[in-house]
Amino acid sequence: MAGETTSQQPLVGIIMGSQSDLRVMDAAAEILELLGVHHELTIVSAHRTPHRMFEYAENARKRGLKVIIAGAGGAAHLPGMVASLTTLPVIGVPVKSSNSIDGWDSVLSILQMPGGVPVATVALDGALNAGILAAQIIGTTNAAVADRIEKYKSSLKDKVMRSVDELKRGDRDLD
Amino acid sequence: MAGETTSQQPLVGIIMGSQSDLRVMDAAAEILELLGVHHELTIVSAHRTPHRMFEYAENARKRGLKVIIAGAGGAAHLPGMVASLTTLPVIGVPVKSSNSIDGWDSVLSILQMPGGVPVATVALDGALNAGILAAQIIGTTNAAVADRIEKYKSSLKDKVMRSVDELKRGDRDLD
Amino acid sequence: MAGETTSQQPLVGIIMGSQSDLRVMDAAAEILELLGVHHELTIVSAHRTPHRMFEYAENARKRGLKVIIAGAGGAAHLPGMVASLTTLPVIGVPVKSSNSIDGWDSVLSILQMPGGVPVATVALDGALNAGILAAQIIGTTNAAVADRIEKYKSSLKDKVMRSVDELKRGDRDLD
Amino acid sequence: MAGETTSQQPLVGIIMGSQSDLRVMDAAAEILELLGVHHELTIVSAHRTPHRMFEYAENARKRGLKVIIAGAGGAAHLPGMVASLTTLPVIGVPVKSSNSIDGWDSVLSILQMPGGVPVATVALDGALNAGILAAQIIGTTNAAVADRIEKYKSSLKDKVMRSVDELKRGDRDLD
Amino acid sequence: MAGETTSQQPLVGIIMGSQSDLRVMDAAAEILELLGVHHELTIVSAHRTPHRMFEYAENARKRGLKVIIAGAGGAAHLPGMVASLTTLPVIGVPVKSSNSIDGWDSVLSILQMPGGVPVATVALDGALNAGILAAQIIGTTNAAVADRIEKYKSSLKDKVMRSVDELKRGDRDLD
Amino acid sequence: MAGETTSQQPLVGIIMGSQSDLRVMDAAAEILELLGVHHELTIVSAHRTPHRMFEYAENARKRGLKVIIAGAGGAAHLPGMVASLTTLPVIGVPVKSSNSIDGWDSVLSILQMPGGVPVATVALDGALNAGILAAQIIGTTNAAVADRIEKYKSSLKDKVMRSVDELKRGDRDLD
Amino acid sequence: MAGETTSQQPLVGIIMGSQSDLRVMDAAAEILELLGVHHELTIVSAHRTPHRMFEYAENARKRGLKVIIAGAGGAAHLPGMVASLTTLPVIGVPVKSSNSIDGWDSVLSILQMPGGVPVATVALDGALNAGILAAQIIGTTNAAVADRIEKYKSSLKDKVMRSVDELKRGDRDLD
Amino acid sequence: MAGETTSQQPLVGIIMGSQSDLRVMDAAAEILELLGVHHELTIVSAHRTPHRMFEYAENARKRGLKVIIAGAGGAAHLPGMVASLTTLPVIGVPVKSSNSIDGWDSVLSILQMPGGVPVATVALDGALNAGILAAQIIGTTNAAVADRIEKYKSSLKDKVMRSVDELKRGDRDLD
Repeated sequence: MAGETTSQQPLVGIIMGSQSDLRVMDAAAEILELLGVHHELTIVSAHRTPHRMFEYAENARKRGLKVIIAGAGGAAHLPGMVASLTTLPVIGVPVKSSNSIDGWDSVLSILQMPGGVPVATVALDGALNAGILAAQIIGTTNAAVADRIEKYKSSLKDKVMRSVDELKRGDRDLD
Repeated sequence: MAGETTSQQPLVGIIMGSQSDLRVMDAAAEILELLGVHHELTIVSAHRTPHRMFEYAENARKRGLKVIIAGAGGAAHLPGMVASLTTLPVIGVPVKSSNSIDGWDSVLSILQMPGGVPVATVALDGALNAGILAAQIIGTTNAAVADRIEKYKSSLKDKVMRSVDELKRGDRDLD
Repeated sequence: MAGETTSQQPLVGIIMGSQSDLRVMDAAAEILELLGVHHELTIVSAHRTPHRMFEYAENARKRGLKVIIAGAGGAAHLPGMVASLTTLPVIGVPVKSSNSIDGWDSVLSILQMPGGVPVATVALDGALNAGILAAQIIGTTNAAVADRIEKYKSSLKDKVMRSVDELKRGDRDLD
Repeated sequence: MAGETTSQQPLVGIIMGSQSDLRVMDAAAEILELLGVHHELTIVSAHRTPHRMFEYAENARKRGLKVIIAGAGGAAHLPGMVASLTTLPVIGVPVKSSNSIDGWDSVLSILQMPGGVPVATVALDGALNAGILAAQIIGTTNAAVADRIEKYKSSLKDKVMRSVDELKRGDRDLD
Repeated sequence: MAGETTSQQPLVGIIMGSQSDLRVMDAAAEILELLGVHHELTIVSAHRTPHRMFEYAENARKRGLKVIIAGAGGAAHLPGMVASLTTLPVIGVPVKSSNSIDGWDSVLSILQMPGGVPVATVALDGALNAGILAAQIIGTTNAAVADRIEKYKSSLKDKVMRSVDELKRGDRDLD
Repeated sequence: MAGETTSQQPLVGIIMGSQSDLRVMDAAAEILELLGVHHELTIVSAHRTPHRMFEYAENARKRGLKVIIAGAGGAAHLPGMVASLTTLPVIGVPVKSSNSIDGWDSVLSILQMPGGVPVATVALDGALNAGILAAQIIGTTNAAVADRIEKYKSSLKDKVMRSVDELKRGDRDLD
Repeated sequence: MAGETTSQQPLVGIIMGSQSDLRVMDAAAEILELLGVHHELTIVSAHRTPHRMFEYAENARKRGLKVIIAGAGGAAHLPGMVASLTTLPVIGVPVKSSNSIDGWDSVLSILQMPGGVPVATVALDGALNAGILAAQIIGTTNAAVADRIEKYKSSLKDKVMRSVDELKRGDRDLD
Repeated sequence: MAGETTSQQPLVGIIMGSQSDLRVMDAAAEILELLGVHHELTIVSAHRTPHRMFEYAENARKRGLKVIIAGAGGAAHLPGMVASLTTLPVIGVPVKSSNSIDGWDSVLSILQMPGGVPVATVALDGALNAGILAAQIIGTTNAAVADRIEKYKSSLKDKVMRSVDELKRGDRDLD
């Protein structure tokens, strides 16, 4: 990735409230890379750079983005505020940040949006799933991406089956 | 399905675990109607009709559905299990059903999916937002739907501004 | 604002996310009235009127406001977003709205602000205390207001002592 | 244990959603070994291998299993889904997995099953108790197993009494 | 049922901490009746009749019981204490009694048993499922009961399918 | 205090933060009456009458009180503050007041006292138990009170046994 | 301490469910030592040695004990069951044991006792406060003990004042 | 800082319940130093030095303080009790102390104050924000302080933008 975007037009924008969220949010970028979905990644803080957030959210559709993934922790307002400023689907990733009360604040302040302004919330620290969900949205009209998701899901199954075989072969003797 | 679907090919499938969830899940159908998105609605119980659930989830993409909205309460396994059986985006609506502990079980058993199988979770009883989110997903490649969402969001703003005006006109005298 | 504000320059701005929050937020206006602090009251929705929120927050100081009281429920972003856009003290009132999970989402999404952007949070549905706190802030440099708060606190004590006397007189015979 | 099953017909099937659950679920296998109850152990993921789960659950009774122990964490659907597909008693072990919010999601998504489809839930990470419970079920009609449980319970009592004696003998001087 | 027991030897003992738990616990008796499992029902309070509890638990196996269902609310010690005094499987029903904090105390004080003494916990107020689970345990070695459970599960599926048909026939027109 | 106290020297002082707590706290006075323990009852607000609270707590021992029962709700500081000002045992009753978040605040702000200053906390709204506990403390050196507690406990057992008999006689036909 | 009791007649019995609770419960013994209150300490498990628990609780008063301190974790039934079997005041210490869900189960299963059977609950892991509370109960009729508690409380105050002085002397330079 | 106060008249008093809270509360002193607001810092324990607390709170206004910041953990009564004894605005900092249940007790016992006695609560361990909030209150009538807050907020934005640039320059290569 040259700079913050892929060379081609990004379809998914990954944003997060703070640089410290990168250790969690990276997983979204990685899986989108794997699934062949062009994306960009940057930092947009609802509380420290509110104007940047407005601009990012309001220009997202016209810049060609199809989905926004927004991660934040504690009183996490970024996903919901971005959702209020765009008609694109916004995926929210509650981050268990250092200032969070065991993640409950992150989850509730992203999930419990009022009627009219949805945020598609994934599990606590669930950036991997945010990336997959973004790809699934792209995949509703892009067969190539849908195929790659299919293969990815197959690989998850294969991994389970390998564990099953290892157990059977007694690679892990329980008695 | 004659009766429960619009005459045209439905793009969004709304399913729920029990007839008692209808009072909540109706809102998804209503807003999709308003936003001009063809949809179907039926009951699929993960625990009482597991085979029907498998069939529904596995045939969804080939039947032309683009998004599935699944609502359930308590130990709510429907959204996650459907998500495990399709590559379509699945939106989960935690329902505060009569057997739920204040909604916490519904929220957590839908939201906290493992890596690889996302469910786009909305607020407790948030079927309205599930419908809007489904339309936003359709709207990523359907300009007409995106426009209707835009207008819908404008109408929300207008409603707030009318409240503001009423307060100003002293319709509700607070001093 | 004719109608919703006192005739003189308001010092405290009371805003809330929805008209339905009025039943809770009124108490802030009433106590400020009692304590002789000029104030205004209106509706500003973070999610449905984000631009109005920006404008309100960014103009608050130059319009002469000294304190902003912001009430909201569920994923309550109004207080924190206003706080990100002004250097005035912002008091947040978590409202137990109909879409809230017993108030926990309202509390956490207002209280758990990141370092740099405080919101002075009061109890769930604690609009009365928000009004008193705003008056206390005004009262740090306004002796007349400080005196009225002093008297108000005395009246609370008097009310307790009257209950004590009623019990003593046997108005409520417990033995 | 040769492979995943004991040489004799297993009566208890221990399954878990992921290899990482083995560190917790082992305790079930160990206690069943101690109590002389034939068992098997393998990995069955509700979300990554849903067809395998269906097959496992639907064949369990005809394969001669009497009880199924299923462990999973986070949005833990395995125990409940297996229970929906068999009439055997299913014991659920909520696992405090790395993606769990302090175990609450695991507990609630296993415990709060709807009417008609019970899961016998044990404590968080309570695989030992799951194994004992399975043996107790076998022991309702198998006197030898019931006797061994009786002896196991005696040994627990003896261990407490040894601690009592050590304290008495001053092995741990508290003053 | 003449008195508290069926005329034949009861296989399942249903006990509860207080008469007020009957409104919840009845469901266990009713489903056992339906599934043709002989049972008895009485009140045994851990805290108000501890000796009666000891006696009940210690005599249960020799009296021919195969399973005990124990329901209680608040600091619910009955299921766990009974489990400590018998080797029979004990099913615990957390009751949302009037002195409970939204059921959390009932759930946790039944579920979180220490290693060695399991309680098979079902959902809050889940007496119906407790009855089914007891029948499933009996059904591990009683084919007639297992058949009746099979039929009961079919009836649950049929009920869902009737709801599906009603929706299809437009009995409830959503568009 | 004529009216609110018994004619003899009270041994137990019952205080509460607000008149609205009386509906809960009455139960403490009633059971002490039944158990023949002289007591007094009044209102002392930590936050509205802090000096009265100081005086009450600091004079309690010299006035002859042996135990203080303090009830409060929300951020309930009365029991802990009284405990900091006396060496008498203080029993705290968390009240589920109208401003409480389901009682959690009341419980935690009474229970979680720092090392050095205990409050003997009873269940939410557990004023009856607070009264019994106070009597038990008196009863450690007063045989007459201890006897009455013994009889009271017997009466609780008798009440359970009457329910048992009613069930046996079929006064409540469950089939 | 020779054996488990002090040479003189113990007034306070400290019991706990498991040897692993000793690391927490020791603090009760230590403070009682400091306050000159004779005590004994042993292990009594509600679930593994229920008969021992019955015996201990039923003989406590005739053996001369005035107060029982009982500590346990998880589904902590020891304090409540002991309270059901004696008329002595019972102090419960919720222990954050390794099998506890962050202490919530320990707290709720001790605190939320039904009407009639109180347990004087202290903070999570609050064995120190349990010891002080026991001494306060003894101190209601024993002036020497009351005096020592008074002195202990003075020492707590002195320790705070020394911290204050250190800060004043700049022992900790904050700028 | 010579001693506990700045050489000039302090405007903000920072107090905390225990020396161990210093590691959290320091951040309030540091930011006030940066924002040029004179302050003092000392230890005042509600439970161990209640008279000192009374004195501190009652003299605060006449000593020239404008705002009090009070930090405490567990059953945290200091902020609320100080608020009951002064008409100054009191900012409460819930501290996640070693005796706290994950901070929930600290938060609820500070936040949930009854009507009439507000505490301006900030996030768990949010001493930095308490300091900023105190400065914002001073800044309502002190333009120099308001300017410094403005600059401080700009510096937060600048720091975000530097992170953005680093990401753009590829300082952190994600692909």
